[in-house]
Amino acid sequence: GSRLQRFVIHPDNWWYMIWRHFILIWAVYSSFFTPLEFGFFRGLPENLFLLDIAGQFAFLIDIVVRFFVAYRDSHSYRIVSNRNLIALRYIKSRFVLDLLGCFPWDAIFKVSGRHELVRYLLWIRLSRALRVTEFFEKLEKDIRINYLATRILKLFVVELYCTHTAACIFYYLATTVPPANEGYTWIGSLKMGDYTYSHFREIDLWKRYVTSLYFAIVTMATVGYGEIHAVNVREMIFIMIYVSVDMILGAYLLGNMAALIVKGSKTEKFRDKMAELITYLKKNNIDRQISKEIKGHLRLQYERSKTEGALLQDIPASIRTKISQNLYEQHVKGASLFKGCSEGFIKQIAAEVHEEFFLPGEVIIEQGKVVDQLYIICHGEVEEVGKVDDDETEESIMRLQVNKSFGEVSFLCNTPQPYTVQVVDLCRVVRLDKQCFKEILGISFSDGRIILNNLLEG
Amino acid sequence: GSRLQRFVIHPDNWWYMIWRHFILIWAVYSSFFTPLEFGFFRGLPENLFLLDIAGQFAFLIDIVVRFFVAYRDSHSYRIVSNRNLIALRYIKSRFVLDLLGCFPWDAIFKVSGRHELVRYLLWIRLSRALRVTEFFEKLEKDIRINYLATRILKLFVVELYCTHTAACIFYYLATTVPPANEGYTWIGSLKMGDYTYSHFREIDLWKRYVTSLYFAIVTMATVGYGEIHAVNVREMIFIMIYVSVDMILGAYLLGNMAALIVKGSKTEKFRDKMAELITYLKKNNIDRQISKEIKGHLRLQYERSKTEGALLQDIPASIRTKISQNLYEQHVKGASLFKGCSEGFIKQIAAEVHEEFFLPGEVIIEQGKVVDQLYIICHGEVEEVGKVDDDETEESIMRLQVNKSFGEVSFLCNTPQPYTVQVVDLCRVVRLDKQCFKEILGISFSDGRIILNNLLEG
Amino acid sequence: GSRLQRFVIHPDNWWYMIWRHFILIWAVYSSFFTPLEFGFFRGLPENLFLLDIAGQFAFLIDIVVRFFVAYRDSHSYRIVSNRNLIALRYIKSRFVLDLLGCFPWDAIFKVSGRHELVRYLLWIRLSRALRVTEFFEKLEKDIRINYLATRILKLFVVELYCTHTAACIFYYLATTVPPANEGYTWIGSLKMGDYTYSHFREIDLWKRYVTSLYFAIVTMATVGYGEIHAVNVREMIFIMIYVSVDMILGAYLLGNMAALIVKGSKTEKFRDKMAELITYLKKNNIDRQISKEIKGHLRLQYERSKTEGALLQDIPASIRTKISQNLYEQHVKGASLFKGCSEGFIKQIAAEVHEEFFLPGEVIIEQGKVVDQLYIICHGEVEEVGKVDDDETEESIMRLQVNKSFGEVSFLCNTPQPYTVQVVDLCRVVRLDKQCFKEILGISFSDGRIILNNLLEG
Amino acid sequence: GSRLQRFVIHPDNWWYMIWRHFILIWAVYSSFFTPLEFGFFRGLPENLFLLDIAGQFAFLIDIVVRFFVAYRDSHSYRIVSNRNLIALRYIKSRFVLDLLGCFPWDAIFKVSGRHELVRYLLWIRLSRALRVTEFFEKLEKDIRINYLATRILKLFVVELYCTHTAACIFYYLATTVPPANEGYTWIGSLKMGDYTYSHFREIDLWKRYVTSLYFAIVTMATVGYGEIHAVNVREMIFIMIYVSVDMILGAYLLGNMAALIVKGSKTEKFRDKMAELITYLKKNNIDRQISKEIKGHLRLQYERSKTEGALLQDIPASIRTKISQNLYEQHVKGASLFKGCSEGFIKQIAAEVHEEFFLPGEVIIEQGKVVDQLYIICHGEVEEVGKVDDDETEESIMRLQVNKSFGEVSFLCNTPQPYTVQVVDLCRVVRLDKQCFKEILGISFSDGRIILNNLLEG
Repeated sequence: GSRLQRFVIHPDNWWYMIWRHFILIWAVYSSFFTPLEFGFFRGLPENLFLLDIAGQFAFLIDIVVRFFVAYRDSHSYRIVSNRNLIALRYIKSRFVLDLLGCFPWDAIFKVSGRHELVRYLLWIRLSRALRVTEFFEKLEKDIRINYLATRILKLFVVELYCTHTAACIFYYLATTVPPANEGYTWIGSLKMGDYTYSHFREIDLWKRYVTSLYFAIVTMATVGYGEIHAVNVREMIFIMIYVSVDMILGAYLLGNMAALIVKGSKTEKFRDKMAELITYLKKNNIDRQISKEIKGHLRLQYERSKTEGALLQDIPASIRTKISQNLYEQHVKGASLFKGCSEGFIKQIAAEVHEEFFLPGEVIIEQGKVVDQLYIICHGEVEEVGKVDDDETEESIMRLQVNKSFGEVSFLCNTPQPYTVQVVDLCRVVRLDKQCFKEILGISFSDGRIILNNLLEG
Repeated sequence: GSRLQRFVIHPDNWWYMIWRHFILIWAVYSSFFTPLEFGFFRGLPENLFLLDIAGQFAFLIDIVVRFFVAYRDSHSYRIVSNRNLIALRYIKSRFVLDLLGCFPWDAIFKVSGRHELVRYLLWIRLSRALRVTEFFEKLEKDIRINYLATRILKLFVVELYCTHTAACIFYYLATTVPPANEGYTWIGSLKMGDYTYSHFREIDLWKRYVTSLYFAIVTMATVGYGEIHAVNVREMIFIMIYVSVDMILGAYLLGNMAALIVKGSKTEKFRDKMAELITYLKKNNIDRQISKEIKGHLRLQYERSKTEGALLQDIPASIRTKISQNLYEQHVKGASLFKGCSEGFIKQIAAEVHEEFFLPGEVIIEQGKVVDQLYIICHGEVEEVGKVDDDETEESIMRLQVNKSFGEVSFLCNTPQPYTVQVVDLCRVVRLDKQCFKEILGISFSDGRIILNNLLEG
Repeated sequence: GSRLQRFVIHPDNWWYMIWRHFILIWAVYSSFFTPLEFGFFRGLPENLFLLDIAGQFAFLIDIVVRFFVAYRDSHSYRIVSNRNLIALRYIKSRFVLDLLGCFPWDAIFKVSGRHELVRYLLWIRLSRALRVTEFFEKLEKDIRINYLATRILKLFVVELYCTHTAACIFYYLATTVPPANEGYTWIGSLKMGDYTYSHFREIDLWKRYVTSLYFAIVTMATVGYGEIHAVNVREMIFIMIYVSVDMILGAYLLGNMAALIVKGSKTEKFRDKMAELITYLKKNNIDRQISKEIKGHLRLQYERSKTEGALLQDIPASIRTKISQNLYEQHVKGASLFKGCSEGFIKQIAAEVHEEFFLPGEVIIEQGKVVDQLYIICHGEVEEVGKVDDDETEESIMRLQVNKSFGEVSFLCNTPQPYTVQVVDLCRVVRLDKQCFKEILGISFSDGRIILNNLLEG
Repeated sequence: GSRLQRFVIHPDNWWYMIWRHFILIWAVYSSFFTPLEFGFFRGLPENLFLLDIAGQFAFLIDIVVRFFVAYRDSHSYRIVSNRNLIALRYIKSRFVLDLLGCFPWDAIFKVSGRHELVRYLLWIRLSRALRVTEFFEKLEKDIRINYLATRILKLFVVELYCTHTAACIFYYLATTVPPANEGYTWIGSLKMGDYTYSHFREIDLWKRYVTSLYFAIVTMATVGYGEIHAVNVREMIFIMIYVSVDMILGAYLLGNMAALIVKGSKTEKFRDKMAELITYLKKNNIDRQISKEIKGHLRLQYERSKTEGALLQDIPASIRTKISQNLYEQHVKGASLFKGCSEGFIKQIAAEVHEEFFLPGEVIIEQGKVVDQLYIICHGEVEEVGKVDDDETEESIMRLQVNKSFGEVSFLCNTPQPYTVQVVDLCRVVRLDKQCFKEILGISFSDGRIILNNLLEG
């Protein structure tokens, strides 16, 4: 219903989505490269410099684009497409940081006479990591992707990123010591077997980076072998901060894991219930046959727990109705009891029934009880069994298959159920409760008469 | 209602609040400085000595003030302002500790011939840390501040404080060894790269403190590089105690994190429900259109979960009534069905309605059902759709906007709803249940007649 | 009911079960030996080679067997015994991996001129670990085995296996360095006391393996003594990966533990309720006698919580009925109130009663109240106590033992209970609720008359 | 009720309790000393030897005593005092272990020619630790002691004990190496600063024990400084086992902590509800006055949550009745509405009322509503306020204090409440619901007439 202003882009626009993913890749690159540049480079080599310029240019375009993208108001849930409002909202939020991030700080550093303070401004670019965070949040809400995996992946990425940043700072701390004192840094004083790092500036970049990262990870995971360790006061202070943050981060990781697991395990609930029941049955010396039936039933329940219709209860009634009709209308229409009823009536009945499963051997209705439910078979087979004259011998009376109903005499006439109904083959049925049936009948009297006729004929 | 005795200060008095915050700052300072003094100073230098005297004087004044502050009795929740009761309560609780803490132990130490035992009495001052604890407890109950942040901050502060104290004790242990054996302490035997700590008493205070703290934190976080470690038996024993306490503390930190996270994540619940539904729909080959509607509905529910009126149920009925009237009275008054009704009646209706949201395309009431709810639109638009003659073609009959009601014919006359009501534009409505309506009508008959007239006219 | 096709094996067939357990042992062996072979052997010695060939042959047979084993369809829960469907399902799932795993890679390695890449194909065999995983999953569902123990055992095995694999890779990394640089590996540069590992290839296999495993475990548990540590870049990279995986694994272990414990402790719930009650009673100065009674009652409840009939509520009604009849029919039949009633009626009553326990001194029914429950004693003894003329003195009127009922006059005639009923000796009773009783009477009128006669006679 | 057989001791007998605590102390000593003896002593010195003999003798007496102590059957909860049954039960359970534990293994070791294998039999005595475990279990159920503290203490003791045992085994491993190779053990190769442990057998026992314990704790807490570490293969294997067990134990500790905390925090629940409400109120621009009232109400609820009568619901009805009568009978009797009613009637009313608290300014009943509750004031003061002629001005009509009732006209006559009732001073009231009142009246008609008279007079 909502038309957008001219030149304003809808946030769900397909082209804009592609642009956002393009910028996301640049944001990942920038988040990763910024600490590296800060730690290991004083003035970039030419090829990296050109790559960096390209990235900053892409972010500049993104700033412009943002002034033309409509947004959804958080209070009224409507799309706001007024250009002034869009601009105001963006300027108030992240505009300044975004703009400052696009400045070519490396070039400014070279021009300003290699002033160390300028290099600290590089960290503004880390605000781009927010985009990656937002992406993860969207991923978590996307139900097509496994949640547990997404969550663990996210925590893992955060930890690796912290380690990467720490590694870059470790190296930075060593390089800002006066060259004369370089033996008095963690890397300058390091010896690995016979290999010495005393002239570490001349070592391969890859080797220096791996060593720093190794130090950071071994500290982060609290392994702390100790062959690499802080040497001067500055390094001690940084390690103290790093280790404190790690403790919080590690606790967060653990807490998340625990939360995911506490919530999760259906197997456990199944087992708990099972174990309690078995204890109870044993204590009271219950028959083994009954124990077996109970176990079978619980196992079936457990396996079906994911397809249960019970989870429909939170969705609006009108949608629920449609689903039920889709699934059960054919079975209701097929039942001889409802032969000749109006389409509207059949639809209403189909909307009110509930699905149930029964295992072979289970008794659905017992002889002599007044039943409040009517059952129709969806698939499987049941058997009517009754004690005819004597109290002792039970005889099989009839077998019922798909679309047959049972319990209807007791259900409609309020009399005791004449026969026990027992399952022969694994059986899916739909159940209609008396209360619902009465309410539906209250509106359409003619169908009531048809049903009574069907009962008398059947 | 409650008058205070003369010279007695109410605990919520503004001036007293300022004084408490002033003392809080001194308590923070004292808690931090006491271990430092114990570990690193034998007799304070003059400037620190004066600062310390000022602090002790402030605490002395606070002791006097406490005799004049009323308190709230924990059983009857009344303010007690009797001076004798106040004094009795304070003397019974913390008076002695507070008083002993104010003694100038440093001066006594100097005077008493630098007797080592006197210095242990410094620790009495740690009882002041209780004030900081109380402050954090108050902070946790203050809902203006983010709870998670407060909690983590508190845990973090506790950990840092433990580490600080341990660092001071580490240094203390080294200094109390006879000078000849100083090479046989953790700091005296320490070498960092080429730097040796063998004459550690002559090193800069800052450097000594950072080294101690680094040792304490690296141990606390179980990193344990090992370049610094216990050397003599006394140090081993202290580290054993410290490490054991740390394990408990670390477990407490982790447990808290886990608890905060287990409780928290609404995103997860949303995702779980969503994922289960999708599985169910797929298994049963439900229409894609219905799937889409369900997803839309759940997403809306999730976003609105913070503004749900359901959370009002725990507050007293009288307050809840006022809030409802505030929010909904205008819409009830605006509905043509209630035109001319008495103010009291309108107010009672407004107190009983419930708010609901619907997405475009959802069906609120279906044709042919008897409805038990009356709806009034707050904002948005709905459409009445009906099958007129034929069973197949549906026609739009009327569009309803703000303050229109629908469902009233079926609601009042107990007949099937003549038309389906479907949402056109995102729609906020209030719902009135039949049971409530009947009860309200039971008191004011005249309004019932007015409503029926309105219905016949409408 | 389901007949299998010719030559098709039912998945629950006894011989097939034995075969699966036989293959399981080979899978355990293969999962353990594959990393060891990869790390420590370049071409197996003859005895190990023959063992390996035997294992691969067993797996080959298993591949053939799998084409003849029926499976249970996950949607309809029926056994599928069509040979084409079975084959299709197996080929789609694991067939290729299983087949490749059976190739004699060690022989191929020797034949191919000891090409290093061929050895990497050994890892295909790890897919056999899946069988072990499946075994553990089945174990978890088996309620005869303690769940907590199974779960912890599984986590423990997974951790040990990871460590074992890591140990093999550690050694592999050292052996693939050119012999000249072997001093520049973790094991080549290692010294333990006076013992040096510089010519590590000549050391006993057992000693090499234990040293590797020790390194892996000390790292995994984040102890990280540091006497063994990474030396070259390749080792650093592997340790970084290993440590990161460990962090996730460790968090998973902890999370599982927490989940198991959070769920578990009944003692706690008992204590919580108890403590709250005691606080309440103290605050309100309640009599000590009452406090004692409450404590006794709660303790009894706690001890019986495992045998409570309440856990029967999730099983199907028909099974629940059988259990109740089994347990309580004799007591109902034995009550003089039901003397002469029809068997069917007795059975229905027995199906509806609930079990309860009472401690000596507790009052079950109070004089003057209209009761809605009828009680029958299963074991123990109660006493009828009443105030006869005066309001003050209470007299014991009658003692009731097994199979006696009480409360029947008030229950049937709707009059106030004439006497207080108090427990003398620890007492197990069954309770019949009025509502259920009325419904059962509604069907069998004749039994109603018999009961009234019994009441008048009694 | 239950008489014991001759010479049979009741398990709750006072003397027997003392004996159990005496044996408990010996069990603690024995559990601690057994590993120490195993690790550090080969043949005890005389003073320790005598102490040990005394301990074994005490345990011997305990074995005899056990044959005379009755026990509670776990199925029927009755005391079993039959001597044969007692003996059978003890012999089946722990008798053999208890007896073997009393043998003087140290003496046997000396006699048997100092055969090393005999010393392993010492570990049988660890079965005595079970008594300590049982003691802790009892402690956990004892509600007089803080549960959290007990639980943490227990975990702490278990950890310390594991460490102590490990320390003893560490030393044992070093002593069983041939003297020539002692430089090739963890302690023989150890140097601390300038101090060398090379001739460790000659060092002070205390120093050796502390060093071992330090090694064990530093490993257990995964600090692993690394200055002490495994040297030979046997030590590596033991550390691998120790570290693996530690991981499980540590996870258990953490899990317990998390569980204790997840359950516990009432502050959090209070904060959550508060925060959600405030968000809701802000979003809907609700009056500040109402916000304040809600906050006050919630805070009061929170502070009273421990004294809430709601927790009485799990205890048997008869006990609950007594408590209510104790607390509220005086207020019901004091109300003028119930003047002259029979004692029994007053008691029944007192048993059915519920306690509630209201803050100053809250409205308890609103004018014009039909109320279903009758209130009686326990302490505090309320005010009746009404709009007399006009709709706008409200006037105070009457003030009510202790034992006054309000709402009685509307409650008894089913008419709208004539006046609004508002709290003046913090107010504790009891509430009587209409349904209960009707049921009580149904039995005692005469009291009904008295109440109507009182109403007309009042």
